[in-house]
Amino acid sequence: MKDILARYPKDQIKKASAVKAIFFDVDGVLTDGRIIYDDNGREVKEFNVKDGLIVPFLKKAGILTGAISGRESAAVARRCAELKLDFCHQGIINKKDTFEKLVQFHKLKKSAVAFVGDDLNDLTTLQVAGFSVCPADAPVYLRKHVDLVTTVKGGGGVLREVGDLVLAARGELEKMIRKL
Amino acid sequence: MKDILARYPKDQIKKASAVKAIFFDVDGVLTDGRIIYDDNGREVKEFNVKDGLIVPFLKKAGILTGAISGRESAAVARRCAELKLDFCHQGIINKKDTFEKLVQFHKLKKSAVAFVGDDLNDLTTLQVAGFSVCPADAPVYLRKHVDLVTTVKGGGGVLREVGDLVLAARGELEKMIRKL
Amino acid sequence: MKDILARYPKDQIKKASAVKAIFFDVDGVLTDGRIIYDDNGREVKEFNVKDGLIVPFLKKAGILTGAISGRESAAVARRCAELKLDFCHQGIINKKDTFEKLVQFHKLKKSAVAFVGDDLNDLTTLQVAGFSVCPADAPVYLRKHVDLVTTVKGGGGVLREVGDLVLAARGELEKMIRKL
Amino acid sequence: MKDILARYPKDQIKKASAVKAIFFDVDGVLTDGRIIYDDNGREVKEFNVKDGLIVPFLKKAGILTGAISGRESAAVARRCAELKLDFCHQGIINKKDTFEKLVQFHKLKKSAVAFVGDDLNDLTTLQVAGFSVCPADAPVYLRKHVDLVTTVKGGGGVLREVGDLVLAARGELEKMIRKL
Repeated sequence: MKDILARYPKDQIKKASAVKAIFFDVDGVLTDGRIIYDDNGREVKEFNVKDGLIVPFLKKAGILTGAISGRESAAVARRCAELKLDFCHQGIINKKDTFEKLVQFHKLKKSAVAFVGDDLNDLTTLQVAGFSVCPADAPVYLRKHVDLVTTVKGGGGVLREVGDLVLAARGELEKMIRKL
Repeated sequence: MKDILARYPKDQIKKASAVKAIFFDVDGVLTDGRIIYDDNGREVKEFNVKDGLIVPFLKKAGILTGAISGRESAAVARRCAELKLDFCHQGIINKKDTFEKLVQFHKLKKSAVAFVGDDLNDLTTLQVAGFSVCPADAPVYLRKHVDLVTTVKGGGGVLREVGDLVLAARGELEKMIRKL
Repeated sequence: MKDILARYPKDQIKKASAVKAIFFDVDGVLTDGRIIYDDNGREVKEFNVKDGLIVPFLKKAGILTGAISGRESAAVARRCAELKLDFCHQGIINKKDTFEKLVQFHKLKKSAVAFVGDDLNDLTTLQVAGFSVCPADAPVYLRKHVDLVTTVKGGGGVLREVGDLVLAARGELEKMIRKL
Repeated sequence: MKDILARYPKDQIKKASAVKAIFFDVDGVLTDGRIIYDDNGREVKEFNVKDGLIVPFLKKAGILTGAISGRESAAVARRCAELKLDFCHQGIINKKDTFEKLVQFHKLKKSAVAFVGDDLNDLTTLQVAGFSVCPADAPVYLRKHVDLVTTVKGGGGVLREVGDLVLAARGELEKMIRKL
């Protein structure tokens, strides 16, 4: 997919081509970071249909996907289940620990795992992931620590952009589109 | 309507002038692609009043309108009913099959049917529609396969832009506005 | 208020200075035009705190405010009541008729009444109002029929911009701010 | 944090470095100013995860945080509690009075207190605060009365930007990030 790969420098494409799993934070990554409450204590979450549509293609390519969130909500659990992610861990205080246990559990190498985070509580995990990614609207002091800043903001299809890049870099996306 | 037609090249206007039906996806077309859940499992959908206001004008001009969605929600059913669309098909896995059956059922020619879709699961339908359209924020590899990329993004009045263009191209819009 | 008046040409300021009432559509003016439904048939409306804060100042200056909406919802009724608008008419099919009756009822002259609308069903009312206004994101064929296109889009503080302009043009805004 | 401080002039950084408390309005500051109602009279508020993540760092640095809002809602109370703000005062008509009492109660000097407000009902408080801040989308006649107009709009992380600036100006942010 020249259209996609033309947007990224060579070293990003190389790192993306080695990715066998994409793990990600939820608020500010799958969502635009809004925390939405109503008067009755209900919480609302807003996801992006574009992120969801790439997950089946990642599955077909054998690439794992999973969420590691510092917060907790029923809406996130529902979305993760709907997308059939490989896991959905919520309420995680030490994300780096969880990340490393998951890498081990799934018998991956860290260098083959992408992590997408958008804020300070993701920083130490981003530093150990093989391919570290943050959205366009992450704080400036986070953006300089990652391999890739996506062109879209949180909630604008960040997982989709990473998924498209990984599949294109691995030469899978074009084949998959032809077979549609 | 010179204001409207001036924005489009001649071949798009020609195709638009032949349109007798506009079929469309919902998420990412009538909405901005957000999937909104609350803690109690309720789903929320956000439509655009601009899209709704053009439907009665399309009806007057004898142009059919209908939704073909891969997902399912009560909110979409309500909105379709309110707009008095000619049909509202939800939970459709193979959109192309459904599209072709609907073309046949309504005794249309494919070349006279516009289809508006925003993602990979719309691609094969876009390829058989007479006038294929996607929103400005569709993936780059979809945008290059369509006749028209709207100036607005999903949820920003995509159906309205297509409806305005079709009515203007057929010389109906100016008459209708004069009669208001 | 030079900061405000500098943004508008002289004839707009002159028309604004004659305004004694501001009547307005709701969807696409007080809101960004989104029609929001949940699975249980509930409708949600999103207003702007900026619009609300100018209403008490308009009241102090003796300027009437009221909503004329083609749709109907409990949320709009609540917001109108909260803002203590002079009226809130919903479910109005012929807005021009209602507008003219309200002008008569409140013993106004049409030339002293601003109307803010964003779409085709507002066009005939805009044509009889003394000062006709539409938001920045109204259709191109509406924008050319009005005295003022606001710098903000629907839901971005359209009523606030009109209120600020009217109060500034009448020389009231600066006095009011000094008295805070 | 050169990345952060490079964006602000010297006098702003100097004022920020003296800040020992950040007090702020809610609607239009922590939110984008939308007032969201449903048909059943429920109100919804949309906060930003970015604002929340800086509060623990401000606490560690001994900087107080608290909300002074003219409106009232259960959702705001919940968010304030979740963030463990030092106080959450809602339904405040005279914000300046409340501000001055809080300054006294917490044994602060006004010159060491930042206040963030976005509209006319915040003006008199902004005028007495040591470091006055408004969001990028505040009215033009408010923006010229403050020490700092944030680069982000209301709801886009205004408190985060102020918190980052204050911590960076005091030389605390870099240390804190290194310790993560």
